[in-house]
Amino acid sequence: MPTAGGRAKKTMSDRPARAWSTAYHAAWVYPVAGEPIADGTLIIEADRIVWVGPRAARRLSASVREVELGSVLLTPGLVNAHTHLDLTVLRGLLDGERFFEWIRSVVAARDLLSPQETLDSALLGIVEGLQGGVTTYADTAPGAEGFQAMKALGVRGVAYLELFGPDPVLCEQAMEGLRARVGALRLDETPLVRLGVSPHAPYSVSDALYAAVAAYARAERLPLATHIGESDAESQLVTDGGGAFAKFLNGRGIATTMRARTPITMLEQNGVLGPNALLIHCIRCDDDDVAAIVRHDAGVVTCPYSNRYFGHGVAPVAAFVAAGVRLGVGSDSMASNRRMDLLAEACAAMPSSDARDGWRECWKLATVGGANALGLGDLIGTLEEGKQADFAAYSVPAGSTIDEALRFASSEGARAQLVVIGGSERVRDGRATADTSAIVARASAATARIREWRALARAT
Amino acid sequence: MPTAGGRAKKTMSDRPARAWSTAYHAAWVYPVAGEPIADGTLIIEADRIVWVGPRAARRLSASVREVELGSVLLTPGLVNAHTHLDLTVLRGLLDGERFFEWIRSVVAARDLLSPQETLDSALLGIVEGLQGGVTTYADTAPGAEGFQAMKALGVRGVAYLELFGPDPVLCEQAMEGLRARVGALRLDETPLVRLGVSPHAPYSVSDALYAAVAAYARAERLPLATHIGESDAESQLVTDGGGAFAKFLNGRGIATTMRARTPITMLEQNGVLGPNALLIHCIRCDDDDVAAIVRHDAGVVTCPYSNRYFGHGVAPVAAFVAAGVRLGVGSDSMASNRRMDLLAEACAAMPSSDARDGWRECWKLATVGGANALGLGDLIGTLEEGKQADFAAYSVPAGSTIDEALRFASSEGARAQLVVIGGSERVRDGRATADTSAIVARASAATARIREWRALARAT
Repeated sequence: MPTAGGRAKKTMSDRPARAWSTAYHAAWVYPVAGEPIADGTLIIEADRIVWVGPRAARRLSASVREVELGSVLLTPGLVNAHTHLDLTVLRGLLDGERFFEWIRSVVAARDLLSPQETLDSALLGIVEGLQGGVTTYADTAPGAEGFQAMKALGVRGVAYLELFGPDPVLCEQAMEGLRARVGALRLDETPLVRLGVSPHAPYSVSDALYAAVAAYARAERLPLATHIGESDAESQLVTDGGGAFAKFLNGRGIATTMRARTPITMLEQNGVLGPNALLIHCIRCDDDDVAAIVRHDAGVVTCPYSNRYFGHGVAPVAAFVAAGVRLGVGSDSMASNRRMDLLAEACAAMPSSDARDGWRECWKLATVGGANALGLGDLIGTLEEGKQADFAAYSVPAGSTIDEALRFASSEGARAQLVVIGGSERVRDGRATADTSAIVARASAATARIREWRALARAT
Repeated sequence: MPTAGGRAKKTMSDRPARAWSTAYHAAWVYPVAGEPIADGTLIIEADRIVWVGPRAARRLSASVREVELGSVLLTPGLVNAHTHLDLTVLRGLLDGERFFEWIRSVVAARDLLSPQETLDSALLGIVEGLQGGVTTYADTAPGAEGFQAMKALGVRGVAYLELFGPDPVLCEQAMEGLRARVGALRLDETPLVRLGVSPHAPYSVSDALYAAVAAYARAERLPLATHIGESDAESQLVTDGGGAFAKFLNGRGIATTMRARTPITMLEQNGVLGPNALLIHCIRCDDDDVAAIVRHDAGVVTCPYSNRYFGHGVAPVAAFVAAGVRLGVGSDSMASNRRMDLLAEACAAMPSSDARDGWRECWKLATVGGANALGLGDLIGTLEEGKQADFAAYSVPAGSTIDEALRFASSEGARAQLVVIGGSERVRDGRATADTSAIVARASAATARIREWRALARAT
């Protein structure tokens, strides 16, 4: 598909304007696929983009609704390529724990949340994401609350149903559970929100279960995501069957042994790597691993702030970029990050680029990068004719250059003035079009309740 | 000087213990100069370190005060190699402005602050720095409030007196003013707090004034700091006499012309580069510039979060490290950063290192790196016998490995439990030993006042 910026497309001017067209006019449009457009216009029909270009080049039509956004930067909606929306209410509560204990605390805290609180937690995560211009969420959770929350708030997303099973004896049992959950929810998929599956991680999923899920996902054409290459302890478990995770598993009567040369190799051996796979973290990933990822065309998502939070290190982003890996960024959960700020994640992932190219590269990583990593690059990630109308607009000072505009819209805590997903306005004048006050209130109450439980647990 | 860790030093055990010795015992001591020490001890006498090593290797003495710090990480105090303490009360107030307008707003806001408010602003900056374990401040300001604040709170620092003068005709007048200010304050220097001079930046200081200040600083043995290589507009002014700064200067009747190949070359031509010089930012700095910095043995400080705030880009840190430049990190002012978090700055400056080496390298940059950049490497920056007793201790979970301990102490918002500067405890049990509540209250009132002024200025 050719890039959109710069000149009028014949297709639009030849086509009769329809009543449900809307033209958004912005001081700057950055289509990501092409050069930034000063005084630009984006025209949508129903859920699709039908024209992007300079306002002056556009054929006028009386039946188009005109929206003057003024001094804003209009960009593709941001893609959060990895998050756990159901953990939003845990923000800050687990700080100071080591990774292994942290995981156990997350499991314990999840058990304490009622279904309504879990749903509120996921809703709150989306409300905050929308305020920052996030239109697509790749959510990973054992329950369906993220799936329901995305549908309720009209955002786009993939809800990866998480499953666990370190004991190979229980593999078929885990698969039965997964098939039942997928079966129950697949009828509720929408064009915006799709299901996926997520075998959790090497220390919680046996080789047999990885292989079974991979085969199932291929047969059912389901996207698959897994945490991989995140910690040294995980690498140790995979490469020699030892370490902290092995000790824990052995204590539960599960034998551990050498499984593969690296975690990525383990995935390859079990048939997990493929175009439908999203590899979360990939910090411990050598050159041969990168080659395997490229060979199987798997996507990767890096979560710099979460990785720093645990001290897990930094993914080999330069090697991924050089090898052409489909790479996006994610904020991970609020239990290991205080905010959902995709531009900050992208800046942290690619910090050595210079100022100008840096901002543009950050926006690419946070939009089309994530879209490609999720296999949604044909639908979203850029502003191009034929793609879905997913975009955000950020206020910038009048007279900003494009680089200034990208910088202002990237700054800490920047809010989107307008967010449109599949043609529907989800944020308007800086406010969610849905009533979110009850969500925020209920989620705050849940946070307070869990904080009390944590204080009690620490005191006893 | 040999590194300290790992074994007892003869000098201590041969020397009679004196009553004013104090032994601090910590789960981990990271001397930075050497390997981390488990169950370590640091012994100080008056203002100096006299022994560092494993607790078990230490010769016992009855006349030493013993301080059991428990599960803490004890490290050298952090060095903030560039800040403007007097702007602390402006935190967040100028967000959303472009660099050029931002500078003008800073000047306007400074004029609005009373001397007491300016002093409170500087005091508040130090209070916050102390809470994070910062023991040394390289402050740059036109007034003496930073100098006074450092002395009042008993911290170490260099107070660089800032001067401006883009019009070469007024060079001698500016020098007269500088000599008078230095003369009045030099008698008030202490072993902890020293004066320096700071010609502001290429767009606010003429070649003639740079040369005059450099000669004066050399003759008076004063350290010198200058903002350099920060923005494209600055580079344009230096390299061809044009751009936004030129327009502003021309409008004030000051002619601009090509001055040098690069900003760093301009400094070299005016005799500014030398071992007493601290180059602030150095983002626009090519290989020849790096070679010039090394040739003249100048120090450099990078401020990643401030640079990102303005969209100025990223300093060539890898090139500095490879060339052996004396490099530290700074937080710059709260008018372009929301916090004084030297470990976060160091992480952002060197993000691609792996987890383990990453934390150690971050601590080096934030301690001995800054000390060396300021020319204070003989006095501070590591825990070694003979150096000044400047250190901080951070609570870490019991049983932490050293890498975990470094990670916990580096996490966002980590507070120091103990801060000692020149042998004096400035934070104890997580609280400043000075009464700081009045400072915080007065500074908050100043912030509220300036916020009202900003709101009024924007409304009219």
